[in-house]
Amino acid sequence: METKKQGAQTFALASPPSLAGFASIAGKKEGEGPLRESFDLIEQDTTFGESTWEKAESAMQQLALEKALEKAKQPMAAMDLLFAGDLLNQCIAAGYSARKAARPFFGLYGACSTMGEALALAAMALDGGFGEWAAAVVSSHFCTAERQYRTPLEYGGQRTPTAQWTATAAGAAVLARAGEGPYLTHVTVGKINDMGIKDANNMGAAMAPAACNTLLTHFADTGRTPEDYDLILTGDLGMLGRQLCKELLQREGIDLSDRYNDCGCLLYDVEAQDVHCGASGCGCSASVLCGLVLNGMRAGKWNRVLFCPTGALHSPVSLAQGESIPGICHAIALSNTIQ
Amino acid sequence: METKKQGAQTFALASPPSLAGFASIAGKKEGEGPLRESFDLIEQDTTFGESTWEKAESAMQQLALEKALEKAKQPMAAMDLLFAGDLLNQCIAAGYSARKAARPFFGLYGACSTMGEALALAAMALDGGFGEWAAAVVSSHFCTAERQYRTPLEYGGQRTPTAQWTATAAGAAVLARAGEGPYLTHVTVGKINDMGIKDANNMGAAMAPAACNTLLTHFADTGRTPEDYDLILTGDLGMLGRQLCKELLQREGIDLSDRYNDCGCLLYDVEAQDVHCGASGCGCSASVLCGLVLNGMRAGKWNRVLFCPTGALHSPVSLAQGESIPGICHAIALSNTIQ
Repeated sequence: METKKQGAQTFALASPPSLAGFASIAGKKEGEGPLRESFDLIEQDTTFGESTWEKAESAMQQLALEKALEKAKQPMAAMDLLFAGDLLNQCIAAGYSARKAARPFFGLYGACSTMGEALALAAMALDGGFGEWAAAVVSSHFCTAERQYRTPLEYGGQRTPTAQWTATAAGAAVLARAGEGPYLTHVTVGKINDMGIKDANNMGAAMAPAACNTLLTHFADTGRTPEDYDLILTGDLGMLGRQLCKELLQREGIDLSDRYNDCGCLLYDVEAQDVHCGASGCGCSASVLCGLVLNGMRAGKWNRVLFCPTGALHSPVSLAQGESIPGICHAIALSNTIQ
Repeated sequence: METKKQGAQTFALASPPSLAGFASIAGKKEGEGPLRESFDLIEQDTTFGESTWEKAESAMQQLALEKALEKAKQPMAAMDLLFAGDLLNQCIAAGYSARKAARPFFGLYGACSTMGEALALAAMALDGGFGEWAAAVVSSHFCTAERQYRTPLEYGGQRTPTAQWTATAAGAAVLARAGEGPYLTHVTVGKINDMGIKDANNMGAAMAPAACNTLLTHFADTGRTPEDYDLILTGDLGMLGRQLCKELLQREGIDLSDRYNDCGCLLYDVEAQDVHCGASGCGCSASVLCGLVLNGMRAGKWNRVLFCPTGALHSPVSLAQGESIPGICHAIALSNTIQ
């Protein structure tokens, strides 16, 4: 078999898998934002009927996966592989959700880039002949993330201007080895970039260099230019990170212009909903992809999309120990046609 | 391309990747155990020269990876993909180690099953045509795990009889799309099994049903029997979990007999080193594989090995919330010949 590698970090799938079904689930605040029409379900009760927020997040993952399966017209039992992750310690939202799914399971951790990692590995597995169907599901929850990473909600801490709001949302995609578009055509697997940012309330700045690096690599590896895409979407750099990413790319002679946006800037009405620099959390890019983007592709609004979720691979412990924030970004090329 | 799926959860690699280089790094206590001759490096200073234990664990991962690359006679830059994980919140041992490696990176979380997950995904990627070289590296550290999962070391808490001792160890393997044996021939991807165990100090009991289930599935999927292997190794069920796994399999009519052991029972002299039920931590099975097992295969002691690392996918938070422990086990078939 010929290698599928293009350039330094990109793989061109020989038989691009179909995104046969996809679903996005959102919490109350997310459902009040500009993307409300794009979600499959908006839950007004952020406990999702569970006794803890962690169990709620797991329930949200299950809902997203079940809805994506329903739309792909497949039973859970048809999934040859399940790739899932979240932001929680020991990835328990994914682990407990996978317990219910009862499918062969790979747990992933890529911080807010996890949907990119899950889609990349699911597509690579199917393209490599490892089954006919795979599912990717990712979530975040404001209430689980806030108390784990920052302070108890009851503390009511003041947020800094560069802070982002962790989305209560989940996205799931069901991939098929063969089927209708949109297709996943290319994967550019990210390397870690770390420019020394140590402020966990400024993750856009920490992750923007990784987004810039992966985008540059993707264009160099594939010979493509920004004009080859109808939409280029990082996630979730937020307002400041989006600006930094644009500036870093401009210095390299790349102008993404109007076709560029960031999932963290799209999920909320940033000013009206008082979310400072925008949204974050791996549920943000996952739900924007599995709602707005894939629905938009199906409707013909965009034919080619480059989805580039970004992750900050630090922990509260590593920052307390004086470490900086390693950023990563994977680029996933989607197309309504197999090319 | 034909599917590589066999039965319910197993994949037979079309061109089994070569385990071209492998290395194991151990801490002081592990270096005093019965496997001392099998490690590439035993570090007497468990800080590995770093200012924190978390940084020490990351340094240990780097050492393991560098040593495995050296033995595979490859530079880091040759690695098309890096798969890594650990037990720490937000997988920081892997993240910071990958920052130094500067290769396309996928972060994984499978608790103590992570080496199985990493080897499975690395082999599937290469067999699928996604590059020529991939590396898998996994670690655990007694001092990082103890304070994260249990109590500060200074507290000196009494351990229960079923407790296991988290290994300070790392294992790394460098896989090549083509090369000499040992080869990775089959992967059986585990599903989650949860029999309701809620005692985090009895993880052998929590994980034994998953090991039993994956072994039964592997035999059913491949048509193989225990006699097809020279060594069947779970990891790390420990003394009690190993016994439970044997009994569960016997009830199903499968007798693993003398060819069966568990990494958690091999790493320490259980009685003399006072480690209660044995070793745990994803560095345990990774270092036993990348030391004792792969060296033994190279020396012709074993020709076919079934490596089945097990993971407990709970967190301290999930147990405090009344949840039970989901167990998982992946089976990785290794052979000195491509079959």
